[in-house]
Amino acid sequence: MSPDQIKAFIAEHDTFARHLDIELLELRQGFARARMPLDARHVNALKIAHGGAIFALADLAFAAASNSHGTVAVAVNVSITYHTAGTGPHLEAEAREIHRNFKLGSYEVRITDAEGQLVATFNGLVYRKKDAVPVGG
Amino acid sequence: MSPDQIKAFIAEHDTFARHLDIELLELRQGFARARMPLDARHVNALKIAHGGAIFALADLAFAAASNSHGTVAVAVNVSITYHTAGTGPHLEAEAREIHRNFKLGSYEVRITDAEGQLVATFNGLVYRKKDAVPVGG
Amino acid sequence: MSPDQIKAFIAEHDTFARHLDIELLELRQGFARARMPLDARHVNALKIAHGGAIFALADLAFAAASNSHGTVAVAVNVSITYHTAGTGPHLEAEAREIHRNFKLGSYEVRITDAEGQLVATFNGLVYRKKDAVPVGG
Amino acid sequence: MSPDQIKAFIAEHDTFARHLDIELLELRQGFARARMPLDARHVNALKIAHGGAIFALADLAFAAASNSHGTVAVAVNVSITYHTAGTGPHLEAEAREIHRNFKLGSYEVRITDAEGQLVATFNGLVYRKKDAVPVGG
Repeated sequence: MSPDQIKAFIAEHDTFARHLDIELLELRQGFARARMPLDARHVNALKIAHGGAIFALADLAFAAASNSHGTVAVAVNVSITYHTAGTGPHLEAEAREIHRNFKLGSYEVRITDAEGQLVATFNGLVYRKKDAVPVGG
Repeated sequence: MSPDQIKAFIAEHDTFARHLDIELLELRQGFARARMPLDARHVNALKIAHGGAIFALADLAFAAASNSHGTVAVAVNVSITYHTAGTGPHLEAEAREIHRNFKLGSYEVRITDAEGQLVATFNGLVYRKKDAVPVGG
Repeated sequence: MSPDQIKAFIAEHDTFARHLDIELLELRQGFARARMPLDARHVNALKIAHGGAIFALADLAFAAASNSHGTVAVAVNVSITYHTAGTGPHLEAEAREIHRNFKLGSYEVRITDAEGQLVATFNGLVYRKKDAVPVGG
Repeated sequence: MSPDQIKAFIAEHDTFARHLDIELLELRQGFARARMPLDARHVNALKIAHGGAIFALADLAFAAASNSHGTVAVAVNVSITYHTAGTGPHLEAEAREIHRNFKLGSYEVRITDAEGQLVATFNGLVYRKKDAVPVGG
């Protein structure tokens, strides 16, 4: 299957991401880009982008990039570091594959605000199954 | 201010957590417990608890525990490891303070399902500001 | 093979740990304890326990605990948080298994000084191979 | 003080790194490069580069880069992911500053073998003190 089919599958079935209005903008093999608006649904009690919302945005890009090869990849570990408060109309996340072998894959995600400022960095590790992503499911 | 005031403040102002129906059940100094139901809002394209939703639940417990001393604590780094697929009616997270000095604090969060099975572990680090949590704000 | 055979194998063949004078004190299934003296070999330019030496001590306990079941376990990710400066005559590390399935294992290591103060916490993830630990090698 | 003075200070006083024969090759503001030979001192019981030795190499580059601005930076958290077995005559680590504010700094370190293959990635966070690095000490 193609990255476009996987992109459509995620857009349709990832109801958590949809509940947060996170949109997968781009998907190629080993690369994904996603965007999230910043409104009342995405802020914390201090009125800045919620750490959990920043994570959710990065996580969608990570999931898309790691499943882009057509087989199911399951997250096993993520480390996220927050650099600056996320503000402005939206945030974007870009996920890139750093390394991949037959069982594990490693991805780096950068989260930036609308002015290109680095809000957070996210490093994720997946376990790669043999099952195909069930795009026709 | 008391942990109860901080608990009420978070419950009222953390609109991200509320959007995901995450409830802060308990808050004491250095300890917090939260719960999240598992429905369409919290699953991924494979229909199991979304890594981002599990993180969001743990993050609320982490934020509550780290702000429980009455001064603002800001997350700087989190590492999360996923052990088993989260299923069942709801998940719970318990956050405990491991160490704290005047500038930094370290917290461990365990996420379990309704049968007590360990779904994920989360380790978070905060930078502690001098500002009081704005409970009267 | 038994944990005792694995303990003897590590003590003989882990020349890195031996170069740092790290001793494996105890090994049971899913649990290990190790000790390291603190002298010129283990300090940084500021004369406190080197982050790399603290890691090395924890890593030996992690490796021993994760290989204690008799099959080879390879580290894939570790997150370490430093809480207080390590001082005194020696440091100890205790590694405990948090979760294990047929392919992955997760371990938590606490590093303490001679007075029992928590110096660092270390969380490690292994990929579990099918090969037996080559104790007879 | 200059990065060259800090480089000389680390080379003289970091006795842990010296014990492992780790050499700081290059230091500029926010960037450092280090090298470590691979011999019996740096391998594990399976005769490949020890996770602890790989960490130690990366850690020296991280410490140098984060102290390159002339004030003391103390490691608070590190996450390391191992991609491939480290083999060959030596390994190199390059540390780059990702973000820095008045209290915290974040660094990314890539560890490669002599053929340029990516062995591990390391993300480190420091707490920045006001004290000058004691180069004249």
